[in-house]
Amino acid sequence: MSRSQPQPRSEFKVFIPMQTRWSDNDVYGHINNVVYYSYFDTAVNQFLIEQGLLDIQQSQIIGLVVATQCEYFSSIAYPEALEIGIAVTKLGRSSVHYALGVFQENAETCCALGKFVHVYVDKLSLQPQPLSDNMVACLTRIKR
Amino acid sequence: MSRSQPQPRSEFKVFIPMQTRWSDNDVYGHINNVVYYSYFDTAVNQFLIEQGLLDIQQSQIIGLVVATQCEYFSSIAYPEALEIGIAVTKLGRSSVHYALGVFQENAETCCALGKFVHVYVDKLSLQPQPLSDNMVACLTRIKR
Amino acid sequence: MSRSQPQPRSEFKVFIPMQTRWSDNDVYGHINNVVYYSYFDTAVNQFLIEQGLLDIQQSQIIGLVVATQCEYFSSIAYPEALEIGIAVTKLGRSSVHYALGVFQENAETCCALGKFVHVYVDKLSLQPQPLSDNMVACLTRIKR
Amino acid sequence: MSRSQPQPRSEFKVFIPMQTRWSDNDVYGHINNVVYYSYFDTAVNQFLIEQGLLDIQQSQIIGLVVATQCEYFSSIAYPEALEIGIAVTKLGRSSVHYALGVFQENAETCCALGKFVHVYVDKLSLQPQPLSDNMVACLTRIKR
Repeated sequence: MSRSQPQPRSEFKVFIPMQTRWSDNDVYGHINNVVYYSYFDTAVNQFLIEQGLLDIQQSQIIGLVVATQCEYFSSIAYPEALEIGIAVTKLGRSSVHYALGVFQENAETCCALGKFVHVYVDKLSLQPQPLSDNMVACLTRIKR
Repeated sequence: MSRSQPQPRSEFKVFIPMQTRWSDNDVYGHINNVVYYSYFDTAVNQFLIEQGLLDIQQSQIIGLVVATQCEYFSSIAYPEALEIGIAVTKLGRSSVHYALGVFQENAETCCALGKFVHVYVDKLSLQPQPLSDNMVACLTRIKR
Repeated sequence: MSRSQPQPRSEFKVFIPMQTRWSDNDVYGHINNVVYYSYFDTAVNQFLIEQGLLDIQQSQIIGLVVATQCEYFSSIAYPEALEIGIAVTKLGRSSVHYALGVFQENAETCCALGKFVHVYVDKLSLQPQPLSDNMVACLTRIKR
Repeated sequence: MSRSQPQPRSEFKVFIPMQTRWSDNDVYGHINNVVYYSYFDTAVNQFLIEQGLLDIQQSQIIGLVVATQCEYFSSIAYPEALEIGIAVTKLGRSSVHYALGVFQENAETCCALGKFVHVYVDKLSLQPQPLSDNMVACLTRIKR
């Protein structure tokens, strides 16, 4: 696994506020490594929903998560307020690669850096489907 | 188990905003019944921390949750923004009873009504300890 | 909220083993109060699935959770292995009331006592539906 | 992000059974990508505890998770029973790299492949500490 450096806010195109929860802290008193991925899921899907690109109940083409990763640079804890920075790093025919930065309020560099890859598939057949023009246009606007 | 009626905002004294998460929705597309308790934990402890009544790392006297309950009146779903209304319903020597209302934005009555009981104990011995004067004063201000 | 006594194993009719997880422990080193409800959900639905009474993908009539509660008598912690005892306490026309006991291995009385109520509804209209004969017969066998 | 192939059971040295939960399924009816990391945390720490290498309450040197990743090859769902295969892939002075395979019962290749990296630090100062001889000996036995 490669070692990255903490990235500045300028590397990300959209920021979604993220509230921490009591249960996010584990027995060592810090946000558990698992929970960061819940922030990523929440932030990316919220962006897609706000852009009209995802309707959880109705969409017949859904984004399957095929790969995720995260590096943790410094610890954070509930009840801190966070922001999740989002940037698209690669747009394929059916796939979208995201970079995600976890920022403490007023912090200039991220305390954790995530990546995840969506492949768009038909909800029933699970066969890959091309990204819609609308999705390509929208995601290009947040491309790094 | 008793059946309550949805309560109006006027029954609660403090409101904590609560962000929903992708993973809060279960397979039926609604916030899972379990997750409401995570909102309650988060809201009550955030209130206590903001009031200077709880320091997660340092406090030697901690609130043990001894009983919880929730009634669900209508379903909600990520990515809705919620508010958790808090009121103290009973102050004992070592215990605090809370009522918690889950409100959708702009809703006048709650979609779920929770209760939970903290008993304050010594962190090591787990023996009940009297509430501090400071805590009694503060919690009396949000007593119903 | 009423105060119950810990109940013995003889009060429950079926036992589902329950594995604890690292993330079940909160900052105080014990299973967080929220997580117990996840055990209840998992145990009851696993019983229903094993009895052929629930097919998560196909069932058109689903069990909505309308009320839950739990009393916590003594603390438990990951990596303990647990068992969840289940008994039906009341069968209505559309509703099922369950009692749930959380047992440590070899413990004769439960360390937590939960209750929850399912109301069966049509998946789309959310209108209450009568319990099937099959369901009534099966749940009667675990009635206290 | 690299694309790996599903690995056979022979690549892993220890297997920890893993029970799925109702709440592990997301709105699409499959285990949510986040939850796999909870399986990893639970499996690795359970192995360490069983080997006498970790005492959650007492250990002064703790394993900080500094990097995690997962590739998802095929979907799984509650109430399936799983097994988590563990192998150490690299032992540093203060760090341990793990590979983790998620296996369905009777499956010969994993449906998801995870990696994660622990760095051992002093619980208070968070400064890296060398692995104990005991830990090196034990982890060498499950090295790939």
